[in-house]
Amino acid sequence: MPVSTIEWIGDLDGYVRLIDQTALPTEVVYKEVRTCEEMWEAIRVLRVRGAPALGIAGALALVLGVRSSTADTWDEFRKDVENTAAYVGTSRPTAVNLFWALSRLKTVAEEHNNLPIPDIKEALLDESLRIIDEDRRVSHRIGELGQELIPDGAGVLTHCNAGGLATAEYGTALAALFAAHEKGKTIRVFADETRPLLQGARLTTWELQQAGIPVTLICDNMAAVVMAQGKVDCVIVGADRIAANGDTANKIGTYGLAVVAQAHDVPFYVAAPVSTFDLTLESGAEIPIEERPDEEITEGMGRRIAPEGTEVYNPAFDVTPADLIAAIVTERGIIRNPSKESILLALS
Amino acid sequence: MPVSTIEWIGDLDGYVRLIDQTALPTEVVYKEVRTCEEMWEAIRVLRVRGAPALGIAGALALVLGVRSSTADTWDEFRKDVENTAAYVGTSRPTAVNLFWALSRLKTVAEEHNNLPIPDIKEALLDESLRIIDEDRRVSHRIGELGQELIPDGAGVLTHCNAGGLATAEYGTALAALFAAHEKGKTIRVFADETRPLLQGARLTTWELQQAGIPVTLICDNMAAVVMAQGKVDCVIVGADRIAANGDTANKIGTYGLAVVAQAHDVPFYVAAPVSTFDLTLESGAEIPIEERPDEEITEGMGRRIAPEGTEVYNPAFDVTPADLIAAIVTERGIIRNPSKESILLALS
Repeated sequence: MPVSTIEWIGDLDGYVRLIDQTALPTEVVYKEVRTCEEMWEAIRVLRVRGAPALGIAGALALVLGVRSSTADTWDEFRKDVENTAAYVGTSRPTAVNLFWALSRLKTVAEEHNNLPIPDIKEALLDESLRIIDEDRRVSHRIGELGQELIPDGAGVLTHCNAGGLATAEYGTALAALFAAHEKGKTIRVFADETRPLLQGARLTTWELQQAGIPVTLICDNMAAVVMAQGKVDCVIVGADRIAANGDTANKIGTYGLAVVAQAHDVPFYVAAPVSTFDLTLESGAEIPIEERPDEEITEGMGRRIAPEGTEVYNPAFDVTPADLIAAIVTERGIIRNPSKESILLALS
Repeated sequence: MPVSTIEWIGDLDGYVRLIDQTALPTEVVYKEVRTCEEMWEAIRVLRVRGAPALGIAGALALVLGVRSSTADTWDEFRKDVENTAAYVGTSRPTAVNLFWALSRLKTVAEEHNNLPIPDIKEALLDESLRIIDEDRRVSHRIGELGQELIPDGAGVLTHCNAGGLATAEYGTALAALFAAHEKGKTIRVFADETRPLLQGARLTTWELQQAGIPVTLICDNMAAVVMAQGKVDCVIVGADRIAANGDTANKIGTYGLAVVAQAHDVPFYVAAPVSTFDLTLESGAEIPIEERPDEEITEGMGRRIAPEGTEVYNPAFDVTPADLIAAIVTERGIIRNPSKESILLALS
């Protein structure tokens, strides 16, 4: 069964129920979140993560924050919405989807500013549930389309976690694998552990096990040898941002994997919702590369692994040029040989 | 200063002094080893590791084991030598150099079988010291020759640890970097952390820091992006075994790195003593790939990182085809474009 990563339980007096991803894979802990501050903390420490899931988390954090607002007038309430949104944004200041969702809710509040305050609160919850519902439908559609690329009997390699845990449920890259499995196809997945934060080892193996799909965990540096042994028929990964020409930013290690896949004539696929495209960027060269703390590498797994004072380079993601990507799977269809032209055609 | 990894202190009543590599990088602990059983344990738990260093460790373990032999006759002493060698071999049954050194010492014992037992014991210690001395000279010669491949101002990427800690001192791949540095060349090294056992993070960064060479630690999956940024002028690694045609077995991840280097037009060099060549093997296809315990990946860093029951593939090394290797540096010279012919010519 696909995992339900984050959901709202009950009416406006209800609460958020989410899988605490910091406890995975050794424990499956569902956390009930009832205040905006608790949600802020859950985002901050990565109890919830993954681009689409962070959009949902941000929207629900705003609902939790303003539902107890004592504002009597629109002007007062708007101030509460603005302040709460600004606060929620500080939990993961680089997460694009968080700001996208907050902005969407602020617009909804504006559109309903002639209604009584309780009704605006209801409208914000409704919009959040709509975001969740849309995300679910997009993920399932990506799965349905993406599974066409996965042959029966295929060995499939994936990197990081582009599964249900990164979305409301079902995922993007993993959605294609879940759908292939549900169609009765026999597949075998190789999951890169994905240093430094090990989302592949911790999350992807767990999700595939839950779904009953055979999975073999490897270190990132073993992908090439598994391909050389002929065990990989395709690679499929998610995306953080896709430029107008198809260049794709994704978790660090994706680019090297695409280079190695090309050298072994293994098709390399990206699966991502249309909302991942940023058509304001001509190419991947314009995507800024976020650098993260040294300690993620040197102390990330419970014990120091490098001498004190070691200089570290820790980019959070890299950019794979479009010419290494055989196809991008979106909810609107599969874009083969992605280019500025084919992407514009597919998204228009 | 290069590190002195393993040495014999004193006369036949002396002891082995080695750097306990399990304590690195957080502590530099020198361990004094006075019995064969202690040496067995040091090899077993990787206090000493690296192909050439294991040869030395094996020889010294045998000396420690037989120096207290109470045998009066050659036949009795030979039995002690055989039994001790067999016992030492069980410490790392797959380490080729261990058996090479034990065999060399057994031959020396045979050659001196007409001498009094105390003199045979002396001959075994002498031979062990000769192995250490040879290893030192070979490493320095590899460094001297290898540094010619490292341009002043170069960015150099290396994988695993082919440094002094893998030999008596100075190393193989790192020897070339030490020598370049000593010649006054300015270099910048990128060290792959080298999952699963992190020899790059733990050992290579430490050795380069000790030598005053600037080093940046990266995860294995970041090598491609560092190359794409133009920061890498060459890659240099060690080797575990080299077939007659130049195909090279080395730490897992080496092959993928060679593929990525080729895609970026970055020359890929191997540095290894002549003793690493196994001319009985036509090609890399004949080199068996050792698989190591799952726990090295799932629990290797102090905390479980994958669900219980996760299937794991953990090859200890991979094979890089000769056509991805620009040159092999040996103590007898640099073999450019390695092939059966060029290797035979260089080694004959």
